[in-house]
Amino acid sequence: MKLSLTTGIIPSLNVSAGLLGFFFVKTWTKFLDKTGWLKQPFTRQENTVIQTCVVASSGISFSGGFGSYLFGMSGVVAKQATSFNDSQNVKNPQIGWIVAFLFVVSFIGLFSVVPLRKIMIIDYRLTYPSGTATAHLINSFHTPQGAKVAKKQVHTLTKFFSFSFLWGFFQWFFTGGDGCGFVNFPTFGLEAFTNKFYFDFSATYVGVGMICPYIINISVLIGGIIAWGIMWPLIETKKGDWYPASLKETSLHGLQGYRVFISIALILGDGLYHFVKVLSITVINFSKASKDKKDEGLSISDPSLSYDDERRTKLFLKDQIPTWFAVGGYVLIAIISIIVLPFIFHPLKWYFILIIYIFAPVLAFCNSYGCGLTDWSLASTYGKLAIFTIGAWAGASHGGVLAGLAACGVMMNIVSTASDLSQDFKTGYLTLASPKSMFISQVIGTAMGCVISPCVFWIFYKAFPDIGQPGSAYPAPFALVYRSMSMLGIEGFSSLPGHCLQLCYIFFAVAIVINGIKDVVGKKWAKYIPLPMAMAIPFYLGTYFAIDMCVGSLILFVWQKVNKARADIFAPAVASGMICGDGIWSLPTAILALAKINPPICMKFLSAAANAKVDTFLAG
Amino acid sequence: MKLSLTTGIIPSLNVSAGLLGFFFVKTWTKFLDKTGWLKQPFTRQENTVIQTCVVASSGISFSGGFGSYLFGMSGVVAKQATSFNDSQNVKNPQIGWIVAFLFVVSFIGLFSVVPLRKIMIIDYRLTYPSGTATAHLINSFHTPQGAKVAKKQVHTLTKFFSFSFLWGFFQWFFTGGDGCGFVNFPTFGLEAFTNKFYFDFSATYVGVGMICPYIINISVLIGGIIAWGIMWPLIETKKGDWYPASLKETSLHGLQGYRVFISIALILGDGLYHFVKVLSITVINFSKASKDKKDEGLSISDPSLSYDDERRTKLFLKDQIPTWFAVGGYVLIAIISIIVLPFIFHPLKWYFILIIYIFAPVLAFCNSYGCGLTDWSLASTYGKLAIFTIGAWAGASHGGVLAGLAACGVMMNIVSTASDLSQDFKTGYLTLASPKSMFISQVIGTAMGCVISPCVFWIFYKAFPDIGQPGSAYPAPFALVYRSMSMLGIEGFSSLPGHCLQLCYIFFAVAIVINGIKDVVGKKWAKYIPLPMAMAIPFYLGTYFAIDMCVGSLILFVWQKVNKARADIFAPAVASGMICGDGIWSLPTAILALAKINPPICMKFLSAAANAKVDTFLAG
Repeated sequence: MKLSLTTGIIPSLNVSAGLLGFFFVKTWTKFLDKTGWLKQPFTRQENTVIQTCVVASSGISFSGGFGSYLFGMSGVVAKQATSFNDSQNVKNPQIGWIVAFLFVVSFIGLFSVVPLRKIMIIDYRLTYPSGTATAHLINSFHTPQGAKVAKKQVHTLTKFFSFSFLWGFFQWFFTGGDGCGFVNFPTFGLEAFTNKFYFDFSATYVGVGMICPYIINISVLIGGIIAWGIMWPLIETKKGDWYPASLKETSLHGLQGYRVFISIALILGDGLYHFVKVLSITVINFSKASKDKKDEGLSISDPSLSYDDERRTKLFLKDQIPTWFAVGGYVLIAIISIIVLPFIFHPLKWYFILIIYIFAPVLAFCNSYGCGLTDWSLASTYGKLAIFTIGAWAGASHGGVLAGLAACGVMMNIVSTASDLSQDFKTGYLTLASPKSMFISQVIGTAMGCVISPCVFWIFYKAFPDIGQPGSAYPAPFALVYRSMSMLGIEGFSSLPGHCLQLCYIFFAVAIVINGIKDVVGKKWAKYIPLPMAMAIPFYLGTYFAIDMCVGSLILFVWQKVNKARADIFAPAVASGMICGDGIWSLPTAILALAKINPPICMKFLSAAANAKVDTFLAG
Repeated sequence: MKLSLTTGIIPSLNVSAGLLGFFFVKTWTKFLDKTGWLKQPFTRQENTVIQTCVVASSGISFSGGFGSYLFGMSGVVAKQATSFNDSQNVKNPQIGWIVAFLFVVSFIGLFSVVPLRKIMIIDYRLTYPSGTATAHLINSFHTPQGAKVAKKQVHTLTKFFSFSFLWGFFQWFFTGGDGCGFVNFPTFGLEAFTNKFYFDFSATYVGVGMICPYIINISVLIGGIIAWGIMWPLIETKKGDWYPASLKETSLHGLQGYRVFISIALILGDGLYHFVKVLSITVINFSKASKDKKDEGLSISDPSLSYDDERRTKLFLKDQIPTWFAVGGYVLIAIISIIVLPFIFHPLKWYFILIIYIFAPVLAFCNSYGCGLTDWSLASTYGKLAIFTIGAWAGASHGGVLAGLAACGVMMNIVSTASDLSQDFKTGYLTLASPKSMFISQVIGTAMGCVISPCVFWIFYKAFPDIGQPGSAYPAPFALVYRSMSMLGIEGFSSLPGHCLQLCYIFFAVAIVINGIKDVVGKKWAKYIPLPMAMAIPFYLGTYFAIDMCVGSLILFVWQKVNKARADIFAPAVASGMICGDGIWSLPTAILALAKINPPICMKFLSAAANAKVDTFLAG
């Protein structure tokens, strides 16, 4: 939740979830063992089921759109967008309707993927890289050697968790006011600070930088330098010419408009490229696989299967969930959605939802299949598709902005749960976990997520009144981006500031071209070419988190130089510890803020001239 | 110089001087070797001579009293002391008279020790622990194994030197105003900060903490807690009762008086104890040794001497400096002093100087002998003796304060050079260096010091106008302490604030008792008993540097736990690097200040309430 609300960059936390799940249950079973109550040992199947439940639960904080479409509906974000902030197009978060909404839309993905899972896992033997990696991790925990390494990793994780938590705690004391504290540290000077170049001492993003591949961190940095180092200062010189000088800093018709819409252009260009690419890979593979299957008649007794795979396949098919149950569940939930959702979002008419639910299984299948091949979930791209189509269909006068965002939510939930669960099924397949218990665990996890995520969001929302404001601690950048997309779908390009559209075209094309080059030059060179998607995020937010992430990269790089083996084993644990510690600390912060306990000190950064003035003011 | 001007705690930097001397000359000879110009290899004798020169030169910055008696004469310090700040008792630093003064008084110590050196080194075979340690270090450098370790140590030193220098550089940017920057970081909150409990991010004192024994750091911390945590807050509640409430914060008749005079009481108590102790050890040993000598007729062909010692003794005696030269030099310089010094310090009459020079050789001998036995130089104690006696003799109406401080300078220079040079002779003896070249090297080093130290001091003095002010970056604490002692000698106890004298008696007694206990309980327990001398410093200054030093101790402690061997080899290098880097950075800072280039940013710490006010002020 913290990651969604700060930058929207969310690395895969599967490894830490697996690690911590293993650690807690192992501690628990050891305790039970000592008291003599333990009947069965802790198995990897149980570990998988726990892991699935945790991922299903925490996934809701992403697919629930608290940092994107859902929060984009709020008045806070609407005010920044200046137009379409009438009551029809605004829906402020309320814990009641959020929980109801999530319950209605989050389970349908589960049912859509059940009938497909045999095709994905057994028939096409898709790789699902993340799911496979998690399975290998869990399998390794349950060997004596692996358990030993895991214990050390957990120790490291705990150490860095505490460090990061305490560092957050220490930082808190110095944030007694706006622009106070380490997060506003002008590391490279005040001039650079106003252009968002600074190191903000965030343990979270140093950790994220250690998990993300180097090229992502470099891309983010390059994006930040291009945008905040070159483009925005240049565009600002056109103030009064390209856009009115009298506008507020946050107005989308001014400089902020360039930031948001050029980001969107990059994101859409990148999304379109991957959509076309993954879809064509999917279609080509699918038709080839179908042909192969027809020709060869693949079965479980396929002689090419190893003993392991044979056992896995047998177990996977033994514990079936009947298709009638899946289809029935899907239809039932769809009917409930069609009835309930228009009550929550008035502009979202019942036929919009029906249309979505007719197309959704196909898109869910596409996404699961693509994800199985490339590890790349296009959930947010499908969501954007829904924003534009449903938004434009509903139209400006009928609350099209809200309808578009709500449709995005419905679509994203189906598509993203479908691909997540396929990953989990792959993990289950490789660890010999029963598909039925996996399914039940997913249902439980999803239900938990539908309650926990809104509650956590609610704490943030109540505790930090400036949430969603640019420049605050929780800017939730994608909220404005999603809302702006929805507006763009309805309004067209007319509201953009001068020359913005041309710049958007250029960056849209650049995103496609860069991706094209990446695919053409081959793997050897591709890893040196930045990712347009990663470059887009600092366009809006600034470079500070890019610097954090690059510090993380640097630490990892030096560590790998010094001792590669140790770095590879412990870096994910260190990073996870840092991310989790800082993330968990934001809960006490929120509670302190709710209890109106303010930090006692303000660490302020003033220019020498301003300081002299303040000193005379304080003295007199 | 930086150490003298900040806290006055000066750890032994002999090891780093030896290390760096070895490193630079080794690099130089390697270069010469490559060009083919090298005729002889670099020997340990040369290394010793270089080391002696460096120590003689840098020793002046301590014995020159820039942080104590010399600066105590200035108007800045006199103003704080409120009384005796008439022109007769004030002499502001001027580079001209400082250099002249140092040249006149610094060489006499050299001549006084020359005739004694055979007695100390050969006849009584005194240990001189520091000198012996330095000799072993230099000997070790000139073995192949030792040279390798030394190279690694130098590498570590360089790394931490750069780190510390860059850290100082980084800190500088945030100090654009009073009370700004990391040195004012209220690490433990604002309340603790006002009571001088904070970590001030000083690389210097973290390094000093790593070099000083644990017990010193703990003593400093305990002293700080007793004084600033308990005593001063309690005494402050008596404001208006024990002392007038209308006084300025820095007045010696108020709270500041308690701080200064209780420090003095502790220092004097400790000094007296050691004076008596070392003197009695000296006398007992001396009489015993004379008796032994008479009985046994110790000679160079003593069969108890090892081959090494025999060779050393032969070499040491071969290259003699004639006694007539030493005595002649001493008398000549004494005559010059007697003529010149009264011109510099008018209240210091010629007969005061004559008296000092008659007694000085005896005291110099005592100190050298005591130092040889215990490694404890009592130079500042002898200096204090001169302050009280000469000051009281001159009297209040004849500039007694200034006379006392000047007499202290004359005395300290003789006594401290005498013991330093005896240490160096011991080093030379153990490394087979010629005593004649040692003597010449000391003369050169002293001459260099007499020019370099005043220049460095002058840069500090000109660059930082608030030097010597309590609470500034360079408070030079001992300047006020020495001046206050001088005033005490003349005025007696009448000017002390209420109950201060009683408290002084108590602490004077406590210092003696603690030292007594330390000697009685035996070595095993003594190391857990704090040192009164170390406890005295934070009484006046505050606890911040004690916290730095304890951080240094903690680092060393953890390091020794993890890898004792590495810690023992590299900790001195790390610490020296940190001290030197930060120290050297203060020169560019001074130059920047002289060039009127101010840091651009102020990192300010405000309470949340003050910050709210400032924010409204800045906004309006």
